[in-house]
Amino acid sequence: MSSLPLQHEEAVRLADEFGTPLFVYDEARLREQCERALAFPAPYGLTVRYAMKAAPTAGLLRLFHQQGLHIDASSGFEIDRARAAGIPAENISLSTQELPVDFAEKVREGVAFNACSLEQLRRYGEALPGSEVGVRFNPGLGSGGTNRTNVGGPASSFGIWHESLDLVKEILAEFDLTAVRIHSHIGSGGDPAVWQRVVSLNLRLAASLPTAKILNLGGGFKVGRMPGEPTTDLQKIGQPVVEELRSFAQEHGRELHLEIEPGTFLIANAGLLLARVQDVADTGAEGYRFLKLDAGMTEVLRPSLYGAQHPIEVLQASPTEKREAAVVVGHCCESGDIFTPAPGDPEALAPRALPPAGIGDFVLIGGVGAYCSTMCAAGYNSFPAPPEVLKKRTGGFTLLRKRQLAAQLTANEC
Amino acid sequence: MSSLPLQHEEAVRLADEFGTPLFVYDEARLREQCERALAFPAPYGLTVRYAMKAAPTAGLLRLFHQQGLHIDASSGFEIDRARAAGIPAENISLSTQELPVDFAEKVREGVAFNACSLEQLRRYGEALPGSEVGVRFNPGLGSGGTNRTNVGGPASSFGIWHESLDLVKEILAEFDLTAVRIHSHIGSGGDPAVWQRVVSLNLRLAASLPTAKILNLGGGFKVGRMPGEPTTDLQKIGQPVVEELRSFAQEHGRELHLEIEPGTFLIANAGLLLARVQDVADTGAEGYRFLKLDAGMTEVLRPSLYGAQHPIEVLQASPTEKREAAVVVGHCCESGDIFTPAPGDPEALAPRALPPAGIGDFVLIGGVGAYCSTMCAAGYNSFPAPPEVLKKRTGGFTLLRKRQLAAQLTANEC
Repeated sequence: MSSLPLQHEEAVRLADEFGTPLFVYDEARLREQCERALAFPAPYGLTVRYAMKAAPTAGLLRLFHQQGLHIDASSGFEIDRARAAGIPAENISLSTQELPVDFAEKVREGVAFNACSLEQLRRYGEALPGSEVGVRFNPGLGSGGTNRTNVGGPASSFGIWHESLDLVKEILAEFDLTAVRIHSHIGSGGDPAVWQRVVSLNLRLAASLPTAKILNLGGGFKVGRMPGEPTTDLQKIGQPVVEELRSFAQEHGRELHLEIEPGTFLIANAGLLLARVQDVADTGAEGYRFLKLDAGMTEVLRPSLYGAQHPIEVLQASPTEKREAAVVVGHCCESGDIFTPAPGDPEALAPRALPPAGIGDFVLIGGVGAYCSTMCAAGYNSFPAPPEVLKKRTGGFTLLRKRQLAAQLTANEC
Repeated sequence: MSSLPLQHEEAVRLADEFGTPLFVYDEARLREQCERALAFPAPYGLTVRYAMKAAPTAGLLRLFHQQGLHIDASSGFEIDRARAAGIPAENISLSTQELPVDFAEKVREGVAFNACSLEQLRRYGEALPGSEVGVRFNPGLGSGGTNRTNVGGPASSFGIWHESLDLVKEILAEFDLTAVRIHSHIGSGGDPAVWQRVVSLNLRLAASLPTAKILNLGGGFKVGRMPGEPTTDLQKIGQPVVEELRSFAQEHGRELHLEIEPGTFLIANAGLLLARVQDVADTGAEGYRFLKLDAGMTEVLRPSLYGAQHPIEVLQASPTEKREAAVVVGHCCESGDIFTPAPGDPEALAPRALPPAGIGDFVLIGGVGAYCSTMCAAGYNSFPAPPEVLKKRTGGFTLLRKRQLAAQLTANEC
């Protein structure tokens, strides 16, 4: 019995039909997570936006749309992609590091916009004077693990630094803009105390922008991918948010609509990679046993990039209790192409206790729904991108994305 | 005056014609590096193979072919790609972590093959009994910086562990294979003492495989990307190689042909990324000044992945002596998308002293010829892959790869 939602006979069927490696998303889990996100406590209304950069395939966008979620786009290209998938412009909000050239046209079509820098706010004002706008702030606080991975605080370039509020007001006044939305995203954390501090900082900004009607807290709801890792309890971190919003309403007479933008929370644990062991290596008594998969950083980059931990399971026709320590590596000729870095130390290898796997055995990499099929070294070593399928609630599998053809990798060459 | 080989007026012209971001390869530097590689000391003959995974664009492969280089392919897909670019099968050698299904056909067409695992050797023997083969060993020693990034030694899965020599001999005998080539790649290093040790280890293997005629030392010739970083002197590291080969010839009566497989050495410093500052951010007195480029980990992943250092230059129409500390970041909504990690510490930011750059200014990222256009988070945040051009020796630019169309990112979706 697999703790990941795929049985051996399903793996055989999938490998026959689509080959490996293969991304599999689980419709039931996706819909469950949507319901959890939509139950985020919000006294004056809630919009949940899927952070589509986590996995932008049209079939997934449509599923989230059906569930009543809106879209958080991170680039102009993502807006076009969502529109092409059938998402109405009114359901899309743009918060980007790079303002698309045609942003004004997109806003006129109905896309909501959060200015993420003073320059963006100025260009927006010049193009669309007299209109409504959102403002993304960096509230001066983040919940990321390190200086580098922090998305709030002085080491982050995301949003307008909170001390620039006066400049924001000047630009708003200059172009007769109405700031209707306060946005800030402070990273992946599940600590209610941190959320309370952030909400309180944001509400201080909302207090000084009296036209604000919407508070957008971004995403960053951490989920446990590995056994024992905690998953953010939205009800729990939502409580201080509710309290802060209520006090704010009492004090300022404004009932702020809440927006959240989860990516990881919605899809990380609803996606797995089905791969196969295609070779093994052994470096002797002082070394390791290596399982080489037919996938790698070309599909799942997070272990190499962040030392991220993903569950790994060997799917065998006849399961055994036996365990053997193995380092799991990818198929690229690249020393960093590993699935089992030491937790918190991407520079070291950490063998996993796995059933004794041989060549041809199926391996499932769990927790790869978010930031894998899309944030990977796709095409490296000229490996084509794998297909994506949806495991349907009602049984069976639907193809969301076909396997890339090798010829597509060179299609733009002259 | 730019230390990188692109002038302001050229940048203007390139941006007009192709847009930014844009990879620019320098033909003169590429040919220079080819000549340096071809001058590697080798008393009994030399074959230089370009490790095409470093940058597999057809125009580059053809240039290396014209210069007399052969090809080192890391996957079956790379072989197909090289063949499609016009490289004869006889000029290609395969050393891969994942044996392609059709390897026997490729070998019959003329591709040389180095078995990189016992399993690969066995499958090769089964498919092509009585033929010649190369054997890639892990000599038990590497020159990589950390446990993770080491490509030789017990923490590496590349090649057949040197203690398995008897098993290798058994398989060779079972399938009547002739081991004509000993291969080992021990990583990026420029220390002659390390090369001497490795050559001596490999020659011990060659001694016990008396049919070996070729010694392949792989690649791993480190180049300095940043000012002050040393570049491997091939003449210097070649000297102990020559001595070892000569002693071996005297002792064993075999004059071994030498193969090397550089990637980085040939192309890293011949490639730059032309980008533009598209926004700036400032996080106050305790924070940083950020330059946001119109490129990022979607083009250059090495800083995020390995904390790699690349030269960064601001190209201004009227250069100034003034310098300002700035953190350079990419355009993705991803906290790890940075160009200026601290040297040796990818978790920390290290501002660079740069001319005061504003929105619209050109920025050159140097040292990106190898493992950038191909080992990147292409398509993340739905940004299309940039074009690649060659700056010709004779003046002018040739397009090698067109900019990807946004529609191509979703072409395989259902």
